Amino acid sequence: MQEVLLIKADLERTDEWVAAFADFDVEVRDWNSPGNAEQIDYALVWQPEAGALARFPNLKLIFSIGAGLDHLMGDNIVPPNVSVIRMVERVLTAGMTEYVLYNVLRFHRFMPQYEADQRNQVWNERFQIPAWERRVGILGLGVLGGAAAAALAALGFAVAGWSRSEKTLPGVVSYYGKPQLAQFLARTEILVCLLPLTEHTENILNADHLSQLPKGAFVINAGRGGHCNEDELLAALERGQIAGAALDVFREEPLRQSSRLWTHPHVYITPHIASMTAPAASAQHVIDNITRLRAAQPLTHVADFARGY
Amino acid sequence: MQEVLLIKADLERTDEWVAAFADFDVEVRDWNSPGNAEQIDYALVWQPEAGALARFPNLKLIFSIGAGLDHLMGDNIVPPNVSVIRMVERVLTAGMTEYVLYNVLRFHRFMPQYEADQRNQVWNERFQIPAWERRVGILGLGVLGGAAAAALAALGFAVAGWSRSEKTLPGVVSYYGKPQLAQFLARTEILVCLLPLTEHTENILNADHLSQLPKGAFVINAGRGGHCNEDELLAALERGQIAGAALDVFREEPLRQSSRLWTHPHVYITPHIASMTAPAASAQHVIDNITRLRAAQPLTHVADFARGY
Repeated sequence: MQEVLLIKADLERTDEWVAAFADFDVEVRDWNSPGNAEQIDYALVWQPEAGALARFPNLKLIFSIGAGLDHLMGDNIVPPNVSVIRMVERVLTAGMTEYVLYNVLRFHRFMPQYEADQRNQVWNERFQIPAWERRVGILGLGVLGGAAAAALAALGFAVAGWSRSEKTLPGVVSYYGKPQLAQFLARTEILVCLLPLTEHTENILNADHLSQLPKGAFVINAGRGGHCNEDELLAALERGQIAGAALDVFREEPLRQSSRLWTHPHVYITPHIASMTAPAASAQHVIDNITRLRAAQPLTHVADFARGY
Repeated sequence: MQEVLLIKADLERTDEWVAAFADFDVEVRDWNSPGNAEQIDYALVWQPEAGALARFPNLKLIFSIGAGLDHLMGDNIVPPNVSVIRMVERVLTAGMTEYVLYNVLRFHRFMPQYEADQRNQVWNERFQIPAWERRVGILGLGVLGGAAAAALAALGFAVAGWSRSEKTLPGVVSYYGKPQLAQFLARTEILVCLLPLTEHTENILNADHLSQLPKGAFVINAGRGGHCNEDELLAALERGQIAGAALDVFREEPLRQSSRLWTHPHVYITPHIASMTAPAASAQHVIDNITRLRAAQPLTHVADFARGY
């Protein structure tokens, strides 16, 4: 009998996900019509409710639809003894690299100021420093942060990264652990957050850390809304400590209408579109791990909930 | 006796240019105080007037401050039998790559639309295609066009280039010559102009060629204002044939106040800042060629006025 993969999709994309598995040796079922619960072997999910996955007693593996695991971290979401596979696929990685490059270049090249000049019909060339004098700092050097750091380094930017443990990436200076965070922040003119959201990284973009950046620094958050204390970021923007912020993720999504972030002149909002998992590209990643499990080979990208990613 | 380099700088940067040559074996003089005209061996110039360089009878080489030669192309600007060296240096090349990447990513990722959404406080995710399904076309695969094409290809974009003669660049499809221009335009969703300005390339961004792009294409002009028929571009924007245009160069610079480009909602203007020659980085390029001339070795980047670059 064919094994069964149950899908709880994001963004109402169930049909697209089902189609992505059409060529593979697995039966796909929609979360809303799971049929016999005992037949479910695998679940590919985004934001399952607490207790929901426990209904499937023979579940062998859970696949996260997002790069982050935070949507799986509450009590009683992942049943005990079931491994979770993180989503790693090239569309997700490439999309994040594009978002980060775009926003780093935007701040580096004074584009918001040139847009204001155009509105005022002013022709005003600004003195431009080269990329190798622009210090970009990436919080988080995992799959997404590492790819963004490499792309920035290839353009010549002075790139550093900060992560839990030391990393070796060509052209990227590695800072790691709490003791080196202050040093990393002090040298960073454009700060990019691509961390996983864990109890250790929550609120890392707070008043204390923002004040350790050089005055007039820029912030790009494409991690999670929980990384940023939005009120403290707004206060830092008000006093000019932070000169601009590109935000793709928020405490509450969609961003609530009353948020002052919408209308702040130096805040650039996108609706959590920096990077999206692509069903077609992801299906192969899912099937690869299913094939490995069937052959009793080691799985790839297994989540470590103790680390948080 | 030390040889003499005369400098006619752009952007009132004479002091910066003079400082750039401080460590080299050449005497530097300002265009406005040339001293004995017979002592001038080299001239590093931006937009010299007709007849002005003919005053220096012993001139051995002329260096262009800009990447283009169009400012040296009028009658009686370059004296007969004096070679011109084009400006090639890494700050100029890197700056252009940044400008092109920024604007390609901006259109590719719907950023102008997300900015409009923010103004309206609307949260609206758009369907995003990956870079490898986005067809970018570069007019001109010289030093600047080649570098931009390589950077776009590295990000995964479907890049093609069009140039006078066939080019071989990894990851870049080469179209060349007039007969292949139509084919190149028909496949290009984001068109980038980095051509030299010559009689063959003037007005290449005209109604006819713009109409050969797919409907809703984007245009980025960082070549010269003379490449673009501004009225015909505006007309193509009005009818939606062109969905957006990022323009760094104009027929008249500064762009005249009365131009409708300033206020068109889908035109993004920068004041000819895409790329600027950096004195410090350029001095080495100039000195390298002076050293080659002294040693009777072949010069690099010698201009070919018959080709126009």
